[in-house]
Amino acid sequence: MARIRLGMVGGGNDAFIGGVHRIASRLDDHFELVAGALSSTPEKSRASGEALALPRIYDDFKSMAIREARLKDGIEAVAIVTPNHVHYEAARDFLKRGIHVICDKPLTSTLADAKKLVKAAERSDALFVLTHNYTGYPMVRQAREMVAAGDIGKIRVVQVEYPQDWLTVEQDIKQAEWRTDPARSGAGGSTGDIGTHAYNLACFVTGLEAEELAADLQAFVPGRQVDDNAHVMLRFAGGARGMLWSSQVAPGNENALRIRVYGETGGLEWAQEDPNYLWHTPFGEPKRLLTRGGAGTGTAAERVSRIPPGHPEGYLEGFANIYSEAAAAIRAHQAGKAIEPEVTYPSVLDGLQGVAFVDACVRSSQRNAAWVRLN
Amino acid sequence: MARIRLGMVGGGNDAFIGGVHRIASRLDDHFELVAGALSSTPEKSRASGEALALPRIYDDFKSMAIREARLKDGIEAVAIVTPNHVHYEAARDFLKRGIHVICDKPLTSTLADAKKLVKAAERSDALFVLTHNYTGYPMVRQAREMVAAGDIGKIRVVQVEYPQDWLTVEQDIKQAEWRTDPARSGAGGSTGDIGTHAYNLACFVTGLEAEELAADLQAFVPGRQVDDNAHVMLRFAGGARGMLWSSQVAPGNENALRIRVYGETGGLEWAQEDPNYLWHTPFGEPKRLLTRGGAGTGTAAERVSRIPPGHPEGYLEGFANIYSEAAAAIRAHQAGKAIEPEVTYPSVLDGLQGVAFVDACVRSSQRNAAWVRLN
Amino acid sequence: MARIRLGMVGGGNDAFIGGVHRIASRLDDHFELVAGALSSTPEKSRASGEALALPRIYDDFKSMAIREARLKDGIEAVAIVTPNHVHYEAARDFLKRGIHVICDKPLTSTLADAKKLVKAAERSDALFVLTHNYTGYPMVRQAREMVAAGDIGKIRVVQVEYPQDWLTVEQDIKQAEWRTDPARSGAGGSTGDIGTHAYNLACFVTGLEAEELAADLQAFVPGRQVDDNAHVMLRFAGGARGMLWSSQVAPGNENALRIRVYGETGGLEWAQEDPNYLWHTPFGEPKRLLTRGGAGTGTAAERVSRIPPGHPEGYLEGFANIYSEAAAAIRAHQAGKAIEPEVTYPSVLDGLQGVAFVDACVRSSQRNAAWVRLN
Amino acid sequence: MARIRLGMVGGGNDAFIGGVHRIASRLDDHFELVAGALSSTPEKSRASGEALALPRIYDDFKSMAIREARLKDGIEAVAIVTPNHVHYEAARDFLKRGIHVICDKPLTSTLADAKKLVKAAERSDALFVLTHNYTGYPMVRQAREMVAAGDIGKIRVVQVEYPQDWLTVEQDIKQAEWRTDPARSGAGGSTGDIGTHAYNLACFVTGLEAEELAADLQAFVPGRQVDDNAHVMLRFAGGARGMLWSSQVAPGNENALRIRVYGETGGLEWAQEDPNYLWHTPFGEPKRLLTRGGAGTGTAAERVSRIPPGHPEGYLEGFANIYSEAAAAIRAHQAGKAIEPEVTYPSVLDGLQGVAFVDACVRSSQRNAAWVRLN
Repeated sequence: MARIRLGMVGGGNDAFIGGVHRIASRLDDHFELVAGALSSTPEKSRASGEALALPRIYDDFKSMAIREARLKDGIEAVAIVTPNHVHYEAARDFLKRGIHVICDKPLTSTLADAKKLVKAAERSDALFVLTHNYTGYPMVRQAREMVAAGDIGKIRVVQVEYPQDWLTVEQDIKQAEWRTDPARSGAGGSTGDIGTHAYNLACFVTGLEAEELAADLQAFVPGRQVDDNAHVMLRFAGGARGMLWSSQVAPGNENALRIRVYGETGGLEWAQEDPNYLWHTPFGEPKRLLTRGGAGTGTAAERVSRIPPGHPEGYLEGFANIYSEAAAAIRAHQAGKAIEPEVTYPSVLDGLQGVAFVDACVRSSQRNAAWVRLN
Repeated sequence: MARIRLGMVGGGNDAFIGGVHRIASRLDDHFELVAGALSSTPEKSRASGEALALPRIYDDFKSMAIREARLKDGIEAVAIVTPNHVHYEAARDFLKRGIHVICDKPLTSTLADAKKLVKAAERSDALFVLTHNYTGYPMVRQAREMVAAGDIGKIRVVQVEYPQDWLTVEQDIKQAEWRTDPARSGAGGSTGDIGTHAYNLACFVTGLEAEELAADLQAFVPGRQVDDNAHVMLRFAGGARGMLWSSQVAPGNENALRIRVYGETGGLEWAQEDPNYLWHTPFGEPKRLLTRGGAGTGTAAERVSRIPPGHPEGYLEGFANIYSEAAAAIRAHQAGKAIEPEVTYPSVLDGLQGVAFVDACVRSSQRNAAWVRLN
Repeated sequence: MARIRLGMVGGGNDAFIGGVHRIASRLDDHFELVAGALSSTPEKSRASGEALALPRIYDDFKSMAIREARLKDGIEAVAIVTPNHVHYEAARDFLKRGIHVICDKPLTSTLADAKKLVKAAERSDALFVLTHNYTGYPMVRQAREMVAAGDIGKIRVVQVEYPQDWLTVEQDIKQAEWRTDPARSGAGGSTGDIGTHAYNLACFVTGLEAEELAADLQAFVPGRQVDDNAHVMLRFAGGARGMLWSSQVAPGNENALRIRVYGETGGLEWAQEDPNYLWHTPFGEPKRLLTRGGAGTGTAAERVSRIPPGHPEGYLEGFANIYSEAAAAIRAHQAGKAIEPEVTYPSVLDGLQGVAFVDACVRSSQRNAAWVRLN
Repeated sequence: MARIRLGMVGGGNDAFIGGVHRIASRLDDHFELVAGALSSTPEKSRASGEALALPRIYDDFKSMAIREARLKDGIEAVAIVTPNHVHYEAARDFLKRGIHVICDKPLTSTLADAKKLVKAAERSDALFVLTHNYTGYPMVRQAREMVAAGDIGKIRVVQVEYPQDWLTVEQDIKQAEWRTDPARSGAGGSTGDIGTHAYNLACFVTGLEAEELAADLQAFVPGRQVDDNAHVMLRFAGGARGMLWSSQVAPGNENALRIRVYGETGGLEWAQEDPNYLWHTPFGEPKRLLTRGGAGTGTAAERVSRIPPGHPEGYLEGFANIYSEAAAAIRAHQAGKAIEPEVTYPSVLDGLQGVAFVDACVRSSQRNAAWVRLN
């Protein structure tokens, strides 16, 4: 089967996430990167494109969208991996030309943009895939499957956290710069960059959405304009309660995303830094350590797993699973078929939820952590 | 040196914590249990006392206080290990007769009682020791010493939690019964029983007190009259922020008390179920695993440690450390000397803090988790 | 029930293990230490005895044995905690006077002494208890019970190890001095001091004995006269194979005793530094984490457990279990009753096995690690 | 830079390792798979090749070698991923035509073949890369760099193990079938399949080679013709001692390869199932947990690392590192340049060492685990 022709917006030489997307797109051999507008200036875009030996290099995403749409063998999909404030316009331009969009999170830097992007996606025949990549981990799929099957009963408590430490002090690197600039990142700092991942993971695993939240945001590093630590209480539809902690100032934490879900009859615990394992406790029985590919795991995890248990798959494999799901969806779409129901990826609506989460956190915090509704 | 003569109120045959206090009092050989009023009825008190071959058995604490105070070789100290609602009256009766009190937590079942007990303690020449036993763990002492020495800089974030699972379903056992009865336990359920431990630990390690909190309490098990899950946001004096989670309905958690403290220059992490270890990350350096008695630990931990590193000390040893501190204080008091500054135990004021914490949680929750002040 | 009157030989001021025995004897309130000959000279014995406020202090164990045997309220049992070369004579002197012996391991410093001590114990009406304390851990009992019940099928492979690091360099402390002196410790260094524990644990858990072994011993630290690292291959009766590693020169290991047992239908794994847990894998099912007192544990562990799951018990509690078993046996003996079958403690024959293990290791190593029989 | 044209021998539809090689070759975008003889019969080869949409499909490796060597754009390198007994002839055929070989381990099924292959490689101008993939893990590189830098002093003890459980019972799957057939796998079972990995890892990290070994091999499953459990004692050049355990019958172990190295001044510990971490203990200091990309790691690890610390890389990334090293070497070779000294991959001589290890294990075991020399 021919590889899907992929373009990329953003992801130039000094970006971290662009390289991740490129590896993820390649890992299962479904995509071939053939075009790009990789940076914010024509010069940088050209330099980055040449470094990657891209067949077609563009000065900016607008010209790329226009030109590629006209080419006979133009790109079929585009990965958008710019700073957040560019997501909306870039995605819109490709969507309206029928080019499928694979976009990094958070969806946009403002709630208004997010809502417009939802409409743009609805108007378009093209698909929109959001790379909440942690939903690609096999044992996260396993957890979701078990919750849906009722293995831990009705959910009562959700504890989710994503602590990091890299912004404990002021950082001069580019990664830090735009992520702490509200004009480019959005009003949320840790909430937008990693809190959205945590919130998305909680929703993905439990199948629940929060109705309201109370958030106490803080910018601990002097001069920082966005939150670098967030304490959030959640109330989910149906009565479950949750806590969410995101932090970029917690020394000793690298990317310590972790979720724990407790229901009426059992509990589940998963940690991103040790992603091939899922703890399951049926209440009143011993804890069980489920392993990716091991005994007791189901088809949802198996579908997105490549190698035997005990050989760890990691972050890139999880990310690649999102790309492979996107490929499956795109191919079904191209063939005029329905997307198979097991094909699972975060949508533009999940993205809207994430931006609504950030917006609610900021609103709540401005009102002394009062409860606010997410929608 | 002669053992200190000890009496006990509560702790009869079917109580868990009485046996713990007895072992703890014996472990370092500072106490001899010689009298008791171990249960709520004369019959049960007698049966329990005989089972322990106690020299002097009383029908109730009142007659015990009166009689022992008159004996030439009467008890010098009393351990109070009843359900919470009895703490105040029992402690008062011994304090006013100059008998030192070692009392289980929470201090009392109501804030009013707590305040009265503080006054009773202030009026008495006798000492009052509260068994917030987790402060007796050597590596908790180590953490406190490091924070005080500035090893992690000014504190920014405190994450503390105490999940259990034993009340996931309705329980008929006596332990569960009084702990879920507001008349005996107090208005807090998980907040009173284990949240107070978590809050005390946070204060003990950081040297901080919370000024205000916002608490979302829940009773998930139908018919339960007190909270079995609590989500609490904390604001400490000086600007640190915290989260506290206590739960009795989290399957897979036994006594998973854990604290993580992050400052401007480093982080510390400790877990009760693995108590001989303390993680320390100086920001920008590799994580270090400090072990009880091992390299890099200081005098505060060493004082309360008995055996070489790698041979685990546990819950009973930590509890015994509180008793040994009490013994040191009592002996200094008896000798008319000042208590050595390194002697460290929770006081009646710590107990008041704990009850104020529960009271604030309940008040906040009644006001939809609004911020309330603790004092 | 009155406490059993206990004497102690060895265990003076600067000894580590004497203090451990004293705490262990006291923890469950079955013993009262009333006499001692705590050191190798009369002066030191007196000083150490006075520091403990012992009622009766002796210059040496011989005079203590003679005198205590004649006293109406003389000691009923004696704890022998001297360097190894003293064990035989001291134990013999008490055994022949009908005083029960609780002796530290290894049984003796030579195989000849071990055999003589076995005979002395057989001739005596008194009991002999060897403190292979790791057999007192509840989850070790659990493992033994599961193996005996066939939960993992016929045993195939046993991996056991006990690495430490304290002798990585030459040490001047007394603990190191006698333990590396063949005249006092015996011909084995790490093999005698900790290898015996590992070997005993393997036998205790599996119910098997090794028929032959091949040992490659090494003294890495220049000038050391006994092994500080031992690699041993084991062949058990019935066909199981094993490896045993003991080391005192493995930096980063404190007391990292660990056993893994694999049978035809499952596996078990336990580590001393995390002793409240036992991993059980039924082949083809998820790994289960059994916890002391938690779901899935049986009566053998419960008998020797004091507090609820999640509250760790440690080294001293495991040691105390041996003392409590000794107390149960002594009281049955005093009452003229049979010892209850569940009462479990290492015997003089287990001690002989341990010394035979050391002897075989040394013999094998002298023959270039050839296979030698243990008996 | 153009992708290197790659062929593949073996790795058809029902093989595990072929898929791994394909992903590994693709991950860093250095190779393009363009030809293959993927199975042992023309029919299966064709079916497997078509499933992968290979441009050029061959009936067998001989015709592929001949034809590709003649093509203008024929393959530049070939991956050999057949059962072991085919390695020698296949590799020889490509080497003699100047096509670079990337070959799975063990090198061959017999020592005689291994020696012939060494000669074939020496005669050829083409490169030979053996996929001892565990040497591709960044933290294994880190360990090797630290040992070489003297960070733990002169090596004394090496403990290495590779337990699995998948052959605990007779298995009918193809993977099991050829791996337990001495005609195809070689005289070693677990020793050849995973023991070679463990031995190679020990040599790679320490820079040492074993001079002699004593091996006790066992086939526990009735009817099995090769070992499924191996206990091996090692004596390294320079005086270090080691133990190696490989097993396929240890329930609860998936791919639990682990190495621990202890030197005169420190220790290192690494485990394949948690590969992003390396424990380092400088003797007398706290244990440190080094993380891939984190503080305290050096250039050797950084070279082969793609993403930030806390985002786990796994087995496929480590495998891909071997392919990327091969690509660097091949490109240098093609450009007529010296291979950069930091480019690191297992060679045909490492492969010979591995087969010599298996041969020595089998010889030793046949002589009742007597010491035998490896060379």
